[in-house]
Amino acid sequence: MGQTPIQIEGDERGGACVFVCEHASNAMPAPWGDLGLNEAQRAAHIAWDPGALGVARALAAQLDAPLAAACQSRLIYDLNRPPHHAGAMPARSETFDIPGNQDLSAQDRLTRTDAIYLPFHAELRALIARRLARGTVPVLVTVHSFTPVYFGQSRTVELGVIHDADPALACAVLEEALEQTGLDTRLNEPYSAADGVTHTLALQATPMGLPHVMLELRNDLIADEASQSAMAATLAPVLRAAIARLSHQAGEAA
Amino acid sequence: MGQTPIQIEGDERGGACVFVCEHASNAMPAPWGDLGLNEAQRAAHIAWDPGALGVARALAAQLDAPLAAACQSRLIYDLNRPPHHAGAMPARSETFDIPGNQDLSAQDRLTRTDAIYLPFHAELRALIARRLARGTVPVLVTVHSFTPVYFGQSRTVELGVIHDADPALACAVLEEALEQTGLDTRLNEPYSAADGVTHTLALQATPMGLPHVMLELRNDLIADEASQSAMAATLAPVLRAAIARLSHQAGEAA
Repeated sequence: MGQTPIQIEGDERGGACVFVCEHASNAMPAPWGDLGLNEAQRAAHIAWDPGALGVARALAAQLDAPLAAACQSRLIYDLNRPPHHAGAMPARSETFDIPGNQDLSAQDRLTRTDAIYLPFHAELRALIARRLARGTVPVLVTVHSFTPVYFGQSRTVELGVIHDADPALACAVLEEALEQTGLDTRLNEPYSAADGVTHTLALQATPMGLPHVMLELRNDLIADEASQSAMAATLAPVLRAAIARLSHQAGEAA
Repeated sequence: MGQTPIQIEGDERGGACVFVCEHASNAMPAPWGDLGLNEAQRAAHIAWDPGALGVARALAAQLDAPLAAACQSRLIYDLNRPPHHAGAMPARSETFDIPGNQDLSAQDRLTRTDAIYLPFHAELRALIARRLARGTVPVLVTVHSFTPVYFGQSRTVELGVIHDADPALACAVLEEALEQTGLDTRLNEPYSAADGVTHTLALQATPMGLPHVMLELRNDLIADEASQSAMAATLAPVLRAAIARLSHQAGEAA
């Protein structure tokens, strides 16, 4: 339990954004171990968001922003779900049973919540609150990836742009991505807040009134370091322009 | 800075509610001290919610529920406001200037945020998340008091029932209070979420989908221990019946 559940990079950076990658890692450290999964399963999208960390890290560098990334597999605790959600410690993910998550006791759920969920979100909260206290309202950007084939169905969307309560930044990112990139970009696809996938935004951005967006990238487009860097190079100006649109609108309203 | 900003009572209690009293105390400990206020000002509603802790403590005992209470004055840090809100460390409250809160530096704001806001809300989050992990969805009830005369205007409302995103419990409490008590009870008075007074609910209840309500009592009705106990005895069955209504509605919907 001694292992930290969160890695923060670039806390000293002063850019407008804070990046979060809740599904950065497929590590399954003690005391949980491999949850009864084989190597191929542990490498698959059920265990993490392949490619998301590389994109998030490159974007954070380009936008001079901090990055908070998870250090354990989402199958041990999915940081984008609250502790009472079945998906927080899923017994099944897509077509796979997760042996080590069957019949978890209340104490098992409590132990994982204490070891992973609470410290991750407390440290992220602190990172954000300290910026607020110093007079900066950061923009929260969470970076995810999704599998190109889900329950046997192919997905054509390449970039999903998802929001929690405030759609302003997501709409601006959508418009900029459609203008600037050739990516098949959709709002609130392949899923949306109604599917319960915006917990981090709901917990960390909405109560503070932070502009926010969740970026979902189809993982076949970011399978290696070169394509992750290229995607970050594509998305960095999209984010910059979208944030500038918000600032411009705020200026007009003031 | 070593002093804890939160006091949790009855963490082992198993009732449906979690009570919170963000403005429980008018204590002004070192290193902040009296902020340049005289004794009468430090005893006034600007420094705390007089009577609220007594009501919250008695309600928590009657409903077998834990209570999380603040240990410092709201003038040092108002736990019901985010760190970038002017009211978090107000330079002025109603008709009073707060000398010790003039021209706070970014470092001053950061120090108070780190010492009070972050640990209070992290411990409250943990208290709630541990109940969720064990399979219980608690009901969050925050207890406040308001001054009968504000900016020279008398207020006739006696019990304000305020909600954040989900009005269900507040509406049920309103109906039960009107049926069961003689209190002048109003929904979202003397202020509402639109006035930025529901930060604790927005931070702790809404992201988790917790039923929630903020109770605002006119402080002349709860000026001593006897009236605080009497108010709790009045409100306990109101809360019980309101929660039962929600459970009944949830049962019908299921």
